[in-house]
Amino acid sequence: MRQPTESRFRVRYAETDQMGVVYYANYLVWMEVGRSDFCRERGFSYREMEGEEKAYLAVAEANCRYMAPARYDNEIVVETEMTRLNRRVVEFSYKIKTGSTLLAEGRTVHVVIGPDGRPRQMPERYLKLLQDKGAPSENH
Amino acid sequence: MRQPTESRFRVRYAETDQMGVVYYANYLVWMEVGRSDFCRERGFSYREMEGEEKAYLAVAEANCRYMAPARYDNEIVVETEMTRLNRRVVEFSYKIKTGSTLLAEGRTVHVVIGPDGRPRQMPERYLKLLQDKGAPSENH
Amino acid sequence: MRQPTESRFRVRYAETDQMGVVYYANYLVWMEVGRSDFCRERGFSYREMEGEEKAYLAVAEANCRYMAPARYDNEIVVETEMTRLNRRVVEFSYKIKTGSTLLAEGRTVHVVIGPDGRPRQMPERYLKLLQDKGAPSENH
Amino acid sequence: MRQPTESRFRVRYAETDQMGVVYYANYLVWMEVGRSDFCRERGFSYREMEGEEKAYLAVAEANCRYMAPARYDNEIVVETEMTRLNRRVVEFSYKIKTGSTLLAEGRTVHVVIGPDGRPRQMPERYLKLLQDKGAPSENH
Repeated sequence: MRQPTESRFRVRYAETDQMGVVYYANYLVWMEVGRSDFCRERGFSYREMEGEEKAYLAVAEANCRYMAPARYDNEIVVETEMTRLNRRVVEFSYKIKTGSTLLAEGRTVHVVIGPDGRPRQMPERYLKLLQDKGAPSENH
Repeated sequence: MRQPTESRFRVRYAETDQMGVVYYANYLVWMEVGRSDFCRERGFSYREMEGEEKAYLAVAEANCRYMAPARYDNEIVVETEMTRLNRRVVEFSYKIKTGSTLLAEGRTVHVVIGPDGRPRQMPERYLKLLQDKGAPSENH
Repeated sequence: MRQPTESRFRVRYAETDQMGVVYYANYLVWMEVGRSDFCRERGFSYREMEGEEKAYLAVAEANCRYMAPARYDNEIVVETEMTRLNRRVVEFSYKIKTGSTLLAEGRTVHVVIGPDGRPRQMPERYLKLLQDKGAPSENH
Repeated sequence: MRQPTESRFRVRYAETDQMGVVYYANYLVWMEVGRSDFCRERGFSYREMEGEEKAYLAVAEANCRYMAPARYDNEIVVETEMTRLNRRVVEFSYKIKTGSTLLAEGRTVHVVIGPDGRPRQMPERYLKLLQDKGAPSENH
């Protein structure tokens, strides 16, 4: 079993709100940090995929369940897994923690689009990198 | 049938990303604008509820489905409805549009907490206002 | 004397931080709202200038002095004036208020660049509109 | 001579805008990351100062000059120095770089306030920690 990718960073003051905790939309930003690191661990930068192939991962759906609040200066760990992959759709699942406390769980679904905003197929090279050895794939 | 609350504003440049469309986390910010306006339409500011009663609406869950991209300078309409209400839980549902185009649909679930972060009951006055059975009147 | 452009909106919860006031970087976002509205009042959308002419206003400098804190739900007014204009440089100055209270004063300096990031000249049409010698009229 | 504090992180997709570069207000967020790390290097978390002493560093002024654009996935280094310190005022200066390229230079001025928003003196313990061995101080 492949381990989830781990991203680590501290909560920024900018990310808090007047309730004294992290504003809820920022968890979606952290998920993006998680999937950027996931791609890097698979051997490419998401930046390359946009730059070289003009293939973009547009978000089709995002969900988050909030269990405990994150606070300024907390050390956050985002655990990212790819839970679905085919030529048109990629899904990531996330666990967001500080220490041993689970703060939130989330999921994002992405469709591959071109610069015109229309669906296209995932470029072969990136599909292979994402599939990796331990990645679930609907293509087999 | 009560109409949904409508919030209107233009997309800010800050809200776009390098894909040329609005970054996905910002839709959750717009939902917050929607529920702030919803409260105001029911006769109170969410600010008062925090300030006077020390009752906070913590987000327990957030979902968003993205149908079409929003772009800089688009006129956005957020339609907000309350789809669940009891002493402990409030749920809002949102439609985010520009012109006649549905851009996204979402939902947020909130639990009432005190300043200590523990669940508490929604203050009676605000429960009534949200139920819309207690429109502000000095005579009753 | 031409009046400053006025932009009006309410402080979003997302814009506050755990100090209970608006996070300082958000004032720069509000300045951007101000200059977007300024362009619109002069007869064009900044969006068009980017889309049609591939001319971009890159920020070269930004300053803000903070006098009093803005709070959630405050009604904000941004007063925007153009304080410098030539073919290469545009400068805007801002006063940010709530009611009669001056919250902040700021200034941004922009240089005109092309899609390659290199300096270019401001397109004639937009220069005229900004100078306010070319107010939109179908008769001239 | 004491070295500046170095903060390192990658540009988030959320931080870009449709010009394909980092939105200008985010540099102020990065400055905040810089001064948080600065405090930590001096032996305390800014979080403690707020939590234990109810002393807050309110931003009175912020400036940024932008030399070159930062892009998604760039490795950013923020170099933070304290350039002024007395019982009422702290000033930080920043250099923001990627590789050997200077992207931006900035400065923030902070006044010490209490929970009521009124100026107060910097708590002795934190003043001493900030003064450190190599810190400029107007108190000697």
